[in-house]
Amino acid sequence: MRKLLKRRSHKAGLSPGSLVHIGELRQAAPRVEVITYDREKVDISHPDLEKECLLPSPEGTVTWVNLEGIGRMELLKRLGDCYGIHPLVLEDIANSEQRPKAEEYDTYLFVVLKMLTPLAAGVSSEQVSLVLGSGWLLTFQEGLDGDPFSPVRERLKNAQGRIRSQGADFLAYSLMDIIVDNYFLVLEQVADSIEVMEEDLMRSPSQRTLAEIYRLKRELLFIHKAIWPLREVINSMIRRESQLVNESTLIYLRDLYDHTIQVIETVETLRDMLSGMLDIYLSSVSNRMNAVIKVLTIIATIFMPLTFIVGLYGMNFKYMPELEWKWGYPAVLLLMVAVTLGMLIFFRRKKWL
Amino acid sequence: MRKLLKRRSHKAGLSPGSLVHIGELRQAAPRVEVITYDREKVDISHPDLEKECLLPSPEGTVTWVNLEGIGRMELLKRLGDCYGIHPLVLEDIANSEQRPKAEEYDTYLFVVLKMLTPLAAGVSSEQVSLVLGSGWLLTFQEGLDGDPFSPVRERLKNAQGRIRSQGADFLAYSLMDIIVDNYFLVLEQVADSIEVMEEDLMRSPSQRTLAEIYRLKRELLFIHKAIWPLREVINSMIRRESQLVNESTLIYLRDLYDHTIQVIETVETLRDMLSGMLDIYLSSVSNRMNAVIKVLTIIATIFMPLTFIVGLYGMNFKYMPELEWKWGYPAVLLLMVAVTLGMLIFFRRKKWL
Amino acid sequence: MRKLLKRRSHKAGLSPGSLVHIGELRQAAPRVEVITYDREKVDISHPDLEKECLLPSPEGTVTWVNLEGIGRMELLKRLGDCYGIHPLVLEDIANSEQRPKAEEYDTYLFVVLKMLTPLAAGVSSEQVSLVLGSGWLLTFQEGLDGDPFSPVRERLKNAQGRIRSQGADFLAYSLMDIIVDNYFLVLEQVADSIEVMEEDLMRSPSQRTLAEIYRLKRELLFIHKAIWPLREVINSMIRRESQLVNESTLIYLRDLYDHTIQVIETVETLRDMLSGMLDIYLSSVSNRMNAVIKVLTIIATIFMPLTFIVGLYGMNFKYMPELEWKWGYPAVLLLMVAVTLGMLIFFRRKKWL
Amino acid sequence: MRKLLKRRSHKAGLSPGSLVHIGELRQAAPRVEVITYDREKVDISHPDLEKECLLPSPEGTVTWVNLEGIGRMELLKRLGDCYGIHPLVLEDIANSEQRPKAEEYDTYLFVVLKMLTPLAAGVSSEQVSLVLGSGWLLTFQEGLDGDPFSPVRERLKNAQGRIRSQGADFLAYSLMDIIVDNYFLVLEQVADSIEVMEEDLMRSPSQRTLAEIYRLKRELLFIHKAIWPLREVINSMIRRESQLVNESTLIYLRDLYDHTIQVIETVETLRDMLSGMLDIYLSSVSNRMNAVIKVLTIIATIFMPLTFIVGLYGMNFKYMPELEWKWGYPAVLLLMVAVTLGMLIFFRRKKWL
Amino acid sequence: MRKLLKRRSHKAGLSPGSLVHIGELRQAAPRVEVITYDREKVDISHPDLEKECLLPSPEGTVTWVNLEGIGRMELLKRLGDCYGIHPLVLEDIANSEQRPKAEEYDTYLFVVLKMLTPLAAGVSSEQVSLVLGSGWLLTFQEGLDGDPFSPVRERLKNAQGRIRSQGADFLAYSLMDIIVDNYFLVLEQVADSIEVMEEDLMRSPSQRTLAEIYRLKRELLFIHKAIWPLREVINSMIRRESQLVNESTLIYLRDLYDHTIQVIETVETLRDMLSGMLDIYLSSVSNRMNAVIKVLTIIATIFMPLTFIVGLYGMNFKYMPELEWKWGYPAVLLLMVAVTLGMLIFFRRKKWL
Repeated sequence: MRKLLKRRSHKAGLSPGSLVHIGELRQAAPRVEVITYDREKVDISHPDLEKECLLPSPEGTVTWVNLEGIGRMELLKRLGDCYGIHPLVLEDIANSEQRPKAEEYDTYLFVVLKMLTPLAAGVSSEQVSLVLGSGWLLTFQEGLDGDPFSPVRERLKNAQGRIRSQGADFLAYSLMDIIVDNYFLVLEQVADSIEVMEEDLMRSPSQRTLAEIYRLKRELLFIHKAIWPLREVINSMIRRESQLVNESTLIYLRDLYDHTIQVIETVETLRDMLSGMLDIYLSSVSNRMNAVIKVLTIIATIFMPLTFIVGLYGMNFKYMPELEWKWGYPAVLLLMVAVTLGMLIFFRRKKWL
Repeated sequence: MRKLLKRRSHKAGLSPGSLVHIGELRQAAPRVEVITYDREKVDISHPDLEKECLLPSPEGTVTWVNLEGIGRMELLKRLGDCYGIHPLVLEDIANSEQRPKAEEYDTYLFVVLKMLTPLAAGVSSEQVSLVLGSGWLLTFQEGLDGDPFSPVRERLKNAQGRIRSQGADFLAYSLMDIIVDNYFLVLEQVADSIEVMEEDLMRSPSQRTLAEIYRLKRELLFIHKAIWPLREVINSMIRRESQLVNESTLIYLRDLYDHTIQVIETVETLRDMLSGMLDIYLSSVSNRMNAVIKVLTIIATIFMPLTFIVGLYGMNFKYMPELEWKWGYPAVLLLMVAVTLGMLIFFRRKKWL
Repeated sequence: MRKLLKRRSHKAGLSPGSLVHIGELRQAAPRVEVITYDREKVDISHPDLEKECLLPSPEGTVTWVNLEGIGRMELLKRLGDCYGIHPLVLEDIANSEQRPKAEEYDTYLFVVLKMLTPLAAGVSSEQVSLVLGSGWLLTFQEGLDGDPFSPVRERLKNAQGRIRSQGADFLAYSLMDIIVDNYFLVLEQVADSIEVMEEDLMRSPSQRTLAEIYRLKRELLFIHKAIWPLREVINSMIRRESQLVNESTLIYLRDLYDHTIQVIETVETLRDMLSGMLDIYLSSVSNRMNAVIKVLTIIATIFMPLTFIVGLYGMNFKYMPELEWKWGYPAVLLLMVAVTLGMLIFFRRKKWL
Repeated sequence: MRKLLKRRSHKAGLSPGSLVHIGELRQAAPRVEVITYDREKVDISHPDLEKECLLPSPEGTVTWVNLEGIGRMELLKRLGDCYGIHPLVLEDIANSEQRPKAEEYDTYLFVVLKMLTPLAAGVSSEQVSLVLGSGWLLTFQEGLDGDPFSPVRERLKNAQGRIRSQGADFLAYSLMDIIVDNYFLVLEQVADSIEVMEEDLMRSPSQRTLAEIYRLKRELLFIHKAIWPLREVINSMIRRESQLVNESTLIYLRDLYDHTIQVIETVETLRDMLSGMLDIYLSSVSNRMNAVIKVLTIIATIFMPLTFIVGLYGMNFKYMPELEWKWGYPAVLLLMVAVTLGMLIFFRRKKWL
Repeated sequence: MRKLLKRRSHKAGLSPGSLVHIGELRQAAPRVEVITYDREKVDISHPDLEKECLLPSPEGTVTWVNLEGIGRMELLKRLGDCYGIHPLVLEDIANSEQRPKAEEYDTYLFVVLKMLTPLAAGVSSEQVSLVLGSGWLLTFQEGLDGDPFSPVRERLKNAQGRIRSQGADFLAYSLMDIIVDNYFLVLEQVADSIEVMEEDLMRSPSQRTLAEIYRLKRELLFIHKAIWPLREVINSMIRRESQLVNESTLIYLRDLYDHTIQVIETVETLRDMLSGMLDIYLSSVSNRMNAVIKVLTIIATIFMPLTFIVGLYGMNFKYMPELEWKWGYPAVLLLMVAVTLGMLIFFRRKKWL
């Protein structure tokens, strides 16, 4: 089970800006990839960050530095020094529990996002940080599950769409767009689970259905937490009128904002549906309890009088004239049939049968 | 059952602005209709969009281009090129899952709405997009169920009301007014279902009543989702003071805004009523369980002592003086009558009978 | 039972501004009353609107035109033409389902209110519209139940209070004040019902109590819907600083605003109380179920062992030494008394008795 | 029981500003006290308001007129005339159901508060109105339970604290401070009740506990209603920057605002705790029902098979070989012991014992 | 158990600004520590406040006065006089029930915080007040549990991080940062408890689980109350643009603000999880009741018919032919086996077995 809170304890008391990685240390050796492109050509390299400092590229070209694996603090620090990034920003990048946010600094814009990927069982969450400067873009991934940015890399190589002719801000938008598109995949998976479970609920609700409802509820809570701040992040990028974001990219960001709202609304709808299913589950449990108690009552109500009657004629009194009668036994049998029928009619009337 | 989420998966990773239709592909061949009118005359044509480009009409006349069926991407693209519409707008039009919104561009205003139509079983939802320019209006329907705009078309032909003497903005308003009026029809249908169910609830609540309550709850949730953003859409059209919307049309838009508020309030009221009915259902179920348990208790409480008594005198002890008495049997019968009466009085006192 | 929604279906598709009455058509022939007054004199007339046009009266006097019955469209239209009122305003007046609102036009202020009157069974709601011009006031009532404005009429005739020396705005305020005062009467009636029911709840909660709770809940929901927008209406009249409302009247409107807030708070309090009563009801139902089950358990727990014992000595084994003992029967009786006492002590300990 | 709504019915239809006392008429003859003070001296008098008009005192001194008992309308009216107070303000003072508020007029500031006093059973609420002018302060109490202002009176007489050297605004603040301090006393009382009840709940929850929870809930609702608007009242006094309130007093008002927030938060916390206790109560009731049903089931499950067995050998068939066996009886007894033990082990496994 | 409300009763009626300590008086003798530092050197002293007045240090150095133990009023008063602090501020410092807040005065900024420390059983809360002047910082702790500020003291001594080269505002930030870091520790502890309990809930939910859920709920409510206002406190420090806070420190404060938001969100998530666990608990209780009732019903349904049958042949009628049959007894045994099997098949079908 996913830990509720990642440990931060070892950080308490350290001076602020201290670079300490918070989060799991699953990732392997960090990989650096630098893509430089302009309208004409694309250049991909994998430099050794510890040796050469990456300086911004000449005007007209865009440099995209993608670092996978944020556990190596020296790399972060060196990259930060090269591009003049504030230590607190680096601290946020290293902290994989950072809340999504957008902050503007003098020469760059800092954005933190959560990327969700649907897994076989549940959802994987990975933090993606973007630092957008004039003509360059740094991206930081935890590098846990697969490489989500490959479609953009392909488009860059093949010069598809308008991406090669636009600046670093459009590149940043394109990456964020992929992340938001992934949210839809995750929600589709959840919606599928809900539909499957809904049929279960109709046919045979069990304690397991309940556990599944709560698992999905929790998953949606988790997704909601990851997505909710994104809305404010994109909105603040739109309103801020930073010089780093071109007018023409703003329209695309607005479109992205729309998608984010749609994701949030879908999450709410799915949550509402789960609540409804929980109610149905509880009510069906209570209905089945009703049915059980009805059976008990019917059985008891029929057999208790009968048992009394046969007990009556099992008494050993010396003077019980009925016992001597020839037709006593058949008469009692008839009486019991009559009592049973009366009860059955009573139940019919009460609509219990 | 309606799918919870329409698939967007095939879109993830495409470059933004790519024209991909999202939604069901029920619609037949797209139909184009162009209506040009001024105070004097009305002209209706069905041009082949792929051949001739539709250019705005001369001053003083209004051109209304209505496209039914948004599944053919080339048509959308061609229309967009003719009228200078941004690719992202076209993408939104093609995406039948778009959230209602209003956006202003340099030369046109873009509005997305959901049109609801009452069906025999439930509600049909169709997306309607409007692009309002100076002197022209483009409308895009999915073209699923019937043609909702025919009353406006009739009014245009017959020169009823003020529609012929007003601009394209008034035409847009008239179409939106029809859409909002349709919401009332849908809510009337829901209200009818609620009233029918309410009587059911009083007479014979069943598991089916519960399912119906949840079906209606879900329907209202769906309607709410379609209507809620409309309020903001119309409000933003009023406050924006676009040059595309005349002062005189603003009063009508304000009236439309009022209607939207009324629709929203009605939805809330109906939801509140459904919640109340759910409570009544649950409480009536629990009351019936009470009644069943009471019957069980009464039967058990009367017959258990009686069965004990007859069992007592069914014992085979050699020395049981009562068994020899002449009046033993009648005495025991009397005792049992007394016990039964006592129990009945006890139940009367407890108001169980 | 009150219909949930008044039919609007016949309106869908009509051109906006079409005068169609929405609502019940209970009212009889419309009655027109014109009161003209200044500091010196009062003049009351009942003109035939279809013949003479009512023009604003000379400066210094106030003209109050009161129209009871809004079902006759020609009358509304004629009055609207005389005073230069926008068709959409007339449409709102004719629509008895209009939501309370205040709108300012160039030469007049348009206010829609709901007037509630306590009836023997429930509450009657009637729509009142006011059009306040400079020196004149038009009021429109549905004219369903009694005449609420008579106290103002009396004050005008008898020159009581400051009403004769103030303008049309003070007259409008006075009428609105009466409407808000009526809300208190309605709430008093509801509060009385709640108090009666509260005693019922303590003594003998029944399914009927539950139905009554829901009836009152619904009534409060209905009242809430009528009153809630009023707050915004009066507030907007205060803040708007219209030239039609004098400074001196503003203080009175603020007072009216206070009263409205108080009405709303009272509604909320009553709703909270009803919720509390519902909880008490449900908990008392569950307590009674507990009591019933306890009785069942006590009876079963006492008599099942006893019945077993007497059954034991009812067996027909040849070799059962106890049966031959002289003191067997009394010993068994004693045993059974002991078992019963033990059970009773057990129940006492468990606090079931 | 406290009436839910005080009657206002006799007021409906009166001209606004009519002085009619709303509320209970418990109070005795109104008492007037006038305190005039400056840095040097204090002067206390009890003038007969109906004879002499109280005019503001010379500059540098502060006049505090305290009127206990607001049922005598002539007194209010006369005082209002002397100090030039608007009839609507007097109407609000006379209406003991007035909502707390602060209103600024040209020459005075009008504040209405609710003062709560803890009583043996519950809480007493009394309305206090303050009219703060330049150099004078009028206060109006209902005069129901005790005199809350005596500490201030003492401080004035003894020249304690800074009160004698400050203006009428500081006097008004001091009185409001006492009122807010009293809220803490009331909440302490409620918190005590909750703590007592909490122990009850752990040891022996009963129907009475439930009633007590609801009584306290209602009390908190009542307190909340009285306190909530106070926050806005004090806030508006701070922001308004009235010339009647000195800069130096503002700091004290801000402090008072803090206290009000704290009172409100305490009320919320207590409400949350009551809700939690309600949940615990309901869950413990349901647990006890579980326990009862378990006892029933255990008894029935043990004795029903036993009773069947003894019944079996109570049959009168001629050919039942077991009955003739010598060890038949002991064998059956052993069988029954085995059945009982089996059942007990079954219950142990199910953790019912 | 923690008292719900600390007593304030002895304060009611005192003149405002009176220095009275509110809260528990656990703390020992107050300890004063003065640290003066600049880039070059650090100086620590423990002066006797009652003798020497602490005056601000020369420019370029920072003076940090830390007072542990706020129960000695004279100390507070003397320190307040030295630094020119308003009596109301001192009153707030002495009141350990003060709500977190930030207030700006002419020459200093006053901040109140709650510091939470995880204890073995539950959470300890301590109030920390900061008064930030130009070049000096006063801090006030209750001094209950341990010394949270030692890491900062160490950093000062060892000249770690940037703290020695920054002003008093950075020192204040560093202390607040420690307090917020401590919140994470507290939440980790709560999260651990929840995880432990979650497993309990799956394996064997008991009444004790319920009590634990409520204990944690209450703890989170308590934490929430302490943390919630902090957000507004830090936000107001950021927006206020006080001259006491340098531009460079603002970035750190913004980072702190982010952490606060994250703390608040974690609290909400934990609360949501507790609610979910409560639902699961309640539903599992109801499931177990269902299981118990099912056992009862199965037993009763099988044995009641059997007992009836054996009772039937226990009757003493003279003429009961079956009793004489040779195979009567085996036939009845067979019949009973058949009945039992029939019942078991019935239960299987109903999925009760």
